[in-house]
Amino acid sequence: MSARLTDGTASADFLARVASCQARIESVLDAALTLPDPGTERLRDAMRYSVLGAGKRLRPTLVYLTGESLGAPLARLDAPAAAVELIHVYSLVHDDLPAMDDDDLRRGRATCHRAYDEATAILVGDALQALAFAVLANEPMLGTSAETRLAMIRLLARATGTGGMAGGQAVDLAAVGHTLTVAAIENMHRRKTGALIQCSVLLGALAAGVQQGAEIAALERFGAEIGLAFQIQDDILDVEGDPLVLGKSTGADAAHSKPTYPSTAGLAASRLRAGELRDAAIAALEPLGARAAGLAQLAKLVVDRSS
Amino acid sequence: MSARLTDGTASADFLARVASCQARIESVLDAALTLPDPGTERLRDAMRYSVLGAGKRLRPTLVYLTGESLGAPLARLDAPAAAVELIHVYSLVHDDLPAMDDDDLRRGRATCHRAYDEATAILVGDALQALAFAVLANEPMLGTSAETRLAMIRLLARATGTGGMAGGQAVDLAAVGHTLTVAAIENMHRRKTGALIQCSVLLGALAAGVQQGAEIAALERFGAEIGLAFQIQDDILDVEGDPLVLGKSTGADAAHSKPTYPSTAGLAASRLRAGELRDAAIAALEPLGARAAGLAQLAKLVVDRSS
Repeated sequence: MSARLTDGTASADFLARVASCQARIESVLDAALTLPDPGTERLRDAMRYSVLGAGKRLRPTLVYLTGESLGAPLARLDAPAAAVELIHVYSLVHDDLPAMDDDDLRRGRATCHRAYDEATAILVGDALQALAFAVLANEPMLGTSAETRLAMIRLLARATGTGGMAGGQAVDLAAVGHTLTVAAIENMHRRKTGALIQCSVLLGALAAGVQQGAEIAALERFGAEIGLAFQIQDDILDVEGDPLVLGKSTGADAAHSKPTYPSTAGLAASRLRAGELRDAAIAALEPLGARAAGLAQLAKLVVDRSS
Repeated sequence: MSARLTDGTASADFLARVASCQARIESVLDAALTLPDPGTERLRDAMRYSVLGAGKRLRPTLVYLTGESLGAPLARLDAPAAAVELIHVYSLVHDDLPAMDDDDLRRGRATCHRAYDEATAILVGDALQALAFAVLANEPMLGTSAETRLAMIRLLARATGTGGMAGGQAVDLAAVGHTLTVAAIENMHRRKTGALIQCSVLLGALAAGVQQGAEIAALERFGAEIGLAFQIQDDILDVEGDPLVLGKSTGADAAHSKPTYPSTAGLAASRLRAGELRDAAIAALEPLGARAAGLAQLAKLVVDRSS
């Protein structure tokens, strides 16, 4: 994501900050996946294969940028940043399974069930979900109370389950071969992708001790808008993106007869809507003032990306 | 489990207590699965189909009996009791998938992927896992501190992930077609089945405010011994049980070339070992005195059952 920008508005400083978030989460995830359990080396290898070495790390970056903007030390953000990425990767591994989207390529490599096998891929997703909650409950998070950790677990469980990602995926499965309204597509995207992206923003705020009031309302709105914008841009890239740049096959949505934003509203309207959501996300940050400059730049990156 | 006993040692009072735990958890699970999310009715129905109306409810019963023995009010035990059963059912739904054990029958009914479809069954397991953590983080648990809840989530995540159930399942997959030593079988069973059973005992203790000392050490031992005893008895029933009584096909382990306790040590040695573990579990309860009478009776039920 950081490597390819089309509008040239992101500063070199900001891109360096994003790159440093990406490097930091890589090492945090590596440590979280150093599992000592003998007899499960293949499972561990498949988990590491699925998680490490690739990915835009948008969700952890949101945790870091939000938390830092509000004054949280980086070390306190590692656990929530890792947790959201572990949930995200588990969902990719399961979504790629033959019974779901049946995809062969992900992040430029064979999908987990192609590189290993289906049973292992099912277990990888299952174990990554458990690990996400384990990390939030276990890892050092200096200066964070048990109440705040519990609030984080509550948010993550909600964003992951039927009210969020899993529910959105069920809607997505049910939609195959059907025509949806634009409103129904937006609802599906808000749950399948948006809930976890919004959760990432809110976990960063919680880690900074911001739990309620105008700042949380602003960040909830910001997270919801960029969550939807991100998925619409994903749909657009599935139509017109470069598979080499994306690291996954394009045209998959159409091949699966999945209704998407572009297939429903058209490409031009999709681009307009993504820009509108980016602007609404940036506008939502107003109560945070100058502290939110990084988040505003990230909102631009989310829409003006080619991978 | 409560309906069929072979040794006649369980009192009518105790059986009534087990039946009341089973009835109580049924209504708690029903409430937890009353999900309002529109558009995901099929997922919700498949979750309810998988969880409600059947099952021995051993794990919730362990939470209730342990917690009650140590003085916790029943209402405080509902959330952990529901959480362990939701994790257990998620593991059954995923284990039954074609890429795993490929089973058609479970608890006397079609398995989830046969009654619905594979994609739905994958999502059902995923969503049940998230719900288990949501229940522990959200539900009222009067008189339980945030620290204690966090400790519960920590234990549950450990019992569920690579160090417990998911790791044990990976060992199980790797063992297909191989000969294992009795020690390796025991290790696999302790992780795949034992970890969550032990966790159920410990969650009951945590809810009662018992966190360390001789009582916890006794309950850890007790949980470990009955966890292994339970799985050995499961292996025995897979050889000589009645499919109508069990509600699932027998002979599945042999058909899948899975090494089991009986296939490795023989049936007679398996029965001996299960009895030995039952006795060790009961002996472990000694520091708890008369309060542990119910747990001791449950240890007998676990081994002397025909379903």
